[in-house]
Amino acid sequence: MSNLKSIAELQGALCLALENKNFPSEPKNLYEPISYILSLGGKRLRPVMVLMVADMYSCDISRVMPQAIGVEYFHNFTLLHDDIMDDAPLRRGMTTVHEKWNENIGILSGDALFVKAYQSLVVAESNHLPLLIDLFNQTALEVCEGQQYDMDFETQDRVDMDAYLKMIKYKTAVLLACSLKVGAIVSDASIEDQNHLYEFGIHTGLAFQLMDDLLDVYGDQKDFGKQIAGDILCNKKTCLYIRAYEVADAAQRKVLDHYFAHQDFDAEKKIAEVKNVYEILNVEAYCRNLMDEHYKTAMNHLSQLSVPQNRKSILTELVAMLMVRIH
Amino acid sequence: MSNLKSIAELQGALCLALENKNFPSEPKNLYEPISYILSLGGKRLRPVMVLMVADMYSCDISRVMPQAIGVEYFHNFTLLHDDIMDDAPLRRGMTTVHEKWNENIGILSGDALFVKAYQSLVVAESNHLPLLIDLFNQTALEVCEGQQYDMDFETQDRVDMDAYLKMIKYKTAVLLACSLKVGAIVSDASIEDQNHLYEFGIHTGLAFQLMDDLLDVYGDQKDFGKQIAGDILCNKKTCLYIRAYEVADAAQRKVLDHYFAHQDFDAEKKIAEVKNVYEILNVEAYCRNLMDEHYKTAMNHLSQLSVPQNRKSILTELVAMLMVRIH
Repeated sequence: MSNLKSIAELQGALCLALENKNFPSEPKNLYEPISYILSLGGKRLRPVMVLMVADMYSCDISRVMPQAIGVEYFHNFTLLHDDIMDDAPLRRGMTTVHEKWNENIGILSGDALFVKAYQSLVVAESNHLPLLIDLFNQTALEVCEGQQYDMDFETQDRVDMDAYLKMIKYKTAVLLACSLKVGAIVSDASIEDQNHLYEFGIHTGLAFQLMDDLLDVYGDQKDFGKQIAGDILCNKKTCLYIRAYEVADAAQRKVLDHYFAHQDFDAEKKIAEVKNVYEILNVEAYCRNLMDEHYKTAMNHLSQLSVPQNRKSILTELVAMLMVRIH
Repeated sequence: MSNLKSIAELQGALCLALENKNFPSEPKNLYEPISYILSLGGKRLRPVMVLMVADMYSCDISRVMPQAIGVEYFHNFTLLHDDIMDDAPLRRGMTTVHEKWNENIGILSGDALFVKAYQSLVVAESNHLPLLIDLFNQTALEVCEGQQYDMDFETQDRVDMDAYLKMIKYKTAVLLACSLKVGAIVSDASIEDQNHLYEFGIHTGLAFQLMDDLLDVYGDQKDFGKQIAGDILCNKKTCLYIRAYEVADAAQRKVLDHYFAHQDFDAEKKIAEVKNVYEILNVEAYCRNLMDEHYKTAMNHLSQLSVPQNRKSILTELVAMLMVRIH
């Protein structure tokens, strides 16, 4: 059995493989935006997860590289379209494609990148194709559903916790889970291991997203790098807000309704009042507990993988890296 | 060998199969637009072509129905996104999705319909999967490229004939060709037949698109149903315009440049002046000849199919139906 590669080594290999991918020079307005968004970098978390799993099963990472790249292409396709839908001016500190070019180019280059994702995904042995394609299609559809729920929630008065958890599962967790399972399929892991890795990805993704909600309000601004309580200021219906509304009495709901009706309040006063309701209702503990439950469930699935304990360390390390800010 | 089914029979079978497809009820804003655009009807030309080919090879049409539906889903996905890009208010006489809902819903339901197309396409025997997927991916990418070229041409001063033919090939012809070849793959037709059908589709598509350009200016308004010379009025760079500009002298180019600079001219005067240039330069005959060449090439590929002559009749009938207005 080969030595396990480090996360940095896998990131390096992925980065190199991505750099060696060239897109046609024409039509320029279709392919330049694709090269541009791919060049913006990022942690390459999803494709690295594909490689990690292959390496865990001592499968040569070059065998899963096309799938790793396919997953990264897919993720960037969703970013292209999400940025249009969210009217986002910046992505990773750089101008978004629809701002730098225009919306039509953002839509169409997104579509083309989606096709490139499929093209890369299917560079596999034909016996793996049916599983890979079914998983990828299901994931892609759920990601669309997650984005739609997220947009729906913005204009909805009430969102219940189950609907919220389903939304973050579809919008974020399923692609992490898919990345791990794709690596397992190509590495010829057992069906049981494939499913444990998928569930590990789902629950890690949920825990991560819940942590994100918590950090916005209770994180250390310096570490977190975002404006503290930005979610409160922009009236985002997070886990904290949803839990608070669920258990609030009439007077507390009135406070929440009042401050979540628009964005023109004095920021400090709004944050203080909303956090006060959160504190009375103990929502931080509730959400932290929910996060911990998903974290534990993830770890439980990891423990059931039929690979030697020392080969699982890279996934433990990954979770530690993701959750370091709160655990 | 079974009797050949008529085009109407195939349309009926397809229609029934489409009606029996149900989308999830939630998220409503994702799936209702999909059901809506699919309910707008149309000739269902592309999926019917898939069925035709299967029937020609005496392959049960139920075996290719998932692929026929996949092709129709893909076509409607392109309509959803094209209508946003073209800012079109109407599609088949009805409000477009992005007008009836909004642009974000048009983008996202288009993405989801694209995934549904892949899901339906891969409901096939696994030995057909690699060919089907590669063909579909290549086609999808070319359709994106065609749409990009078309958008580029709008703001480009000059478009040469080769670039124009490539654009209409990618934007229209490749999906017709793909539909026929998909039918051939699932029917286990020989590689030679698959390729002849593909080329038949390409050249039929090109001939059809050139006919469309010709009919706009030289068609009978009653039969054609569109405003005569609508392409001239909206400064569209058609085959006629491109040929005219290629062979025009300085004075004639000045006339074309003048009238294609904006849309605020007196319509009758503009049409008369541009048609006058077209007539002097004999562009109608040139484009008609180009169309005929592609029509003949298509027929030549059809003649080389290794199926009994009488089973090819449905494809001849299809072309006759498409080209009836000018041949």
